[in-house]
Amino acid sequence: MTEKQFPIGAAVVGQSGGPTAAINATLAGVIRACLSSEAHGKITSLYGMKNGIEGFLEDRLVDLFPRFLTPEGVKDEEKLYRLERTPAAALGSCRVKLPPYDPDEKVYARIAEALRKHDIRYFFYIGGNDSMDTVEKLRRFTEETGYDLRVIGLPKTIDNDLLGTDHTPGYGSAAKYVATVMQEIVCDTAVYTVPAVTIVEIMGRNAGWLTAAAALPRLVGGAAPDLVYLPEATFDMDRFFEDVRETFRRKSNVVVAVSEGIRFADGEYVGAEAQSGVTDVFRHKYLAGAAKVLERRVRTEFGCKVRSLELSLPQRCSSHCASLTDLNEAEEVGAAGVAAALSGTTGCMMALERIDSRSESYAVRYVPKDVRTIANGERLVPASYINERGNGVTDECLRYLLPLIRGEVSAEGAFGLPWCVVLD
Amino acid sequence: MTEKQFPIGAAVVGQSGGPTAAINATLAGVIRACLSSEAHGKITSLYGMKNGIEGFLEDRLVDLFPRFLTPEGVKDEEKLYRLERTPAAALGSCRVKLPPYDPDEKVYARIAEALRKHDIRYFFYIGGNDSMDTVEKLRRFTEETGYDLRVIGLPKTIDNDLLGTDHTPGYGSAAKYVATVMQEIVCDTAVYTVPAVTIVEIMGRNAGWLTAAAALPRLVGGAAPDLVYLPEATFDMDRFFEDVRETFRRKSNVVVAVSEGIRFADGEYVGAEAQSGVTDVFRHKYLAGAAKVLERRVRTEFGCKVRSLELSLPQRCSSHCASLTDLNEAEEVGAAGVAAALSGTTGCMMALERIDSRSESYAVRYVPKDVRTIANGERLVPASYINERGNGVTDECLRYLLPLIRGEVSAEGAFGLPWCVVLD
Repeated sequence: MTEKQFPIGAAVVGQSGGPTAAINATLAGVIRACLSSEAHGKITSLYGMKNGIEGFLEDRLVDLFPRFLTPEGVKDEEKLYRLERTPAAALGSCRVKLPPYDPDEKVYARIAEALRKHDIRYFFYIGGNDSMDTVEKLRRFTEETGYDLRVIGLPKTIDNDLLGTDHTPGYGSAAKYVATVMQEIVCDTAVYTVPAVTIVEIMGRNAGWLTAAAALPRLVGGAAPDLVYLPEATFDMDRFFEDVRETFRRKSNVVVAVSEGIRFADGEYVGAEAQSGVTDVFRHKYLAGAAKVLERRVRTEFGCKVRSLELSLPQRCSSHCASLTDLNEAEEVGAAGVAAALSGTTGCMMALERIDSRSESYAVRYVPKDVRTIANGERLVPASYINERGNGVTDECLRYLLPLIRGEVSAEGAFGLPWCVVLD
Repeated sequence: MTEKQFPIGAAVVGQSGGPTAAINATLAGVIRACLSSEAHGKITSLYGMKNGIEGFLEDRLVDLFPRFLTPEGVKDEEKLYRLERTPAAALGSCRVKLPPYDPDEKVYARIAEALRKHDIRYFFYIGGNDSMDTVEKLRRFTEETGYDLRVIGLPKTIDNDLLGTDHTPGYGSAAKYVATVMQEIVCDTAVYTVPAVTIVEIMGRNAGWLTAAAALPRLVGGAAPDLVYLPEATFDMDRFFEDVRETFRRKSNVVVAVSEGIRFADGEYVGAEAQSGVTDVFRHKYLAGAAKVLERRVRTEFGCKVRSLELSLPQRCSSHCASLTDLNEAEEVGAAGVAAALSGTTGCMMALERIDSRSESYAVRYVPKDVRTIANGERLVPASYINERGNGVTDECLRYLLPLIRGEVSAEGAFGLPWCVVLD
């Protein structure tokens, strides 16, 4: 992270990794800030990379200023507002990982070419761990080549697992959706008298942040799952059976929330039983079935009605159930990234710092953090957030989560459906 | 359906069948109407059956008036409002079906005993096809025994498959959720460049009404699935492959919505393949559904990335995404049922009649229909609502659906989570 005087030139912004309900709010924040008076005369154009770095390497760029200016040449606030509330990633995304910097590596020659072609001096990249890896490699590229570029990472992931930040934009909305549908599912499963176990699988390979949100209704007197298992606590099948048996003593409908990434003591994924050993380009194991495995095991052990479900894609892109706090922060972190770049910062990720942790007066500020301390790391749920038995989360955890889901967005899109801005 | 002078006595109300986001609004409508001046002096108490007829037979009743009156003896509107917005079934539900009426049948002796014990003269039963069967059998019981009871069925089902009514309360909210998350899923799947097929399974064994709602975003310029298959159209695997191939010519991400109940020409469920002895590599039986079968077949046929997901429980109980039109109608049909009973009607289901089918001036009225013409029937999606190719729905279908999803409810429950009123 170094500071230099600002160069004059174009900016480029890209989105990377999995979709969220808030990533377009960060894009809107970047666009707003680049169109602001502070950027005037410094940022001459703003290009959107189609499909992140993948599209940048193929020179697939979208000129964003004309798309967000009215015929009168002022910011199109209505369109920016719709963009903020559009789920997924309006510019498209990618899962491309750059090779380590090497002057002989062809990909860096292409990057240099694309940067020079458009005289790009500002590079904003919105994403999670893998995207911060891209930011760090580009920083290294600028250091080695002397190309004058400000590279800023803007955090985004429903996994909430980035180091150096209190939480990540995108998480609050996903957490709100998980807490909301969990409460609805608990209500749903309670209607019949026949003993039943319902197992709900929530995204999170290594970090259980999103699964922890399933317990949120408990803090506010709502209907919460009986048992919650995070990947941070070792999973033991016999203890799980004991937990279910114990819960059946109190009630006839047991609801269980599990992370897709729960593991046995030997490190093997519980869901591994149901998978084929396929890995993605980052060699992450592809998990398909913790809840499905548990469903089978519970049926055999208890002989009762068992049902498993995965919250699947809706949990990461439910803009209709977005947290207003999350959308606002996502927008602000984008603007803060542009401001940091204009003040000369590079090689950093904009982090969120909670300046007041009391729920009623919750507030954050945005600070640049050296991306080298962040890229390829992982922030897990701390031990103090998990109960002793390893089958639930503590109130301390829920108090951390609660401010992040605050505030509703009404689905004021066309006929009550969400907004859907496309940038082609 | 006969009319008599009103008797004075107690009323009982029950909920039956699958949960919905609107069934508690109908319960609230019944409670409001029974507490109204019109019912004063006629309906002396209102009991809620726990778990429908199952609980009624076991005399598990909840005295509802004290629970919805303030200490001052006036209607507790705040609590009624919360009840309206609580998902699932606050009184609990059941799937019990009564045997045909027979004076020697013990269950009818039990019913007679429970009715006499509490001097019940009004019987309101909220549910779908099976529940209307219960209403019809109770009508028969009153006819045969001469017990003076008004039996009224109140429609409720996300399946929208009841005869004699324009649509059913509960359907509009489920349809709104399906249309909303479908649009979000389409946005989500569009972010990567790698060719992929996403298959979304939606509830509906015989009737494709809910699956049809997946196409709604198309009518309002939103993001809709490319292919939609309802159980009413015969499913053919080769034609499906052709449809996918054809869509791949236009775009790299294909999104497919299928009813769980799609069937081949021989009547076999597409999802049955997954339950007919197919095992995974670990020789566990796959108990999946239509989407899972199609996922495997598409992977083999196209060799591309394929993902399947089931909307599962959230589609039937998403009160956070309820249609305000649906909740209002659900409340009104409950009140209309009480009014009909007070005017002497019995043996009927309250049906919704669309009195203005133009979207902008949409309105309904509530009319009693002889339950014998409704019970055990099924209203399927008509041929004119399905396109010629059988892989989508017509605009006529979407124009029928659109008014039903209108109006948002904000999640103004505790900290933005839905309300959750429990009646014990």
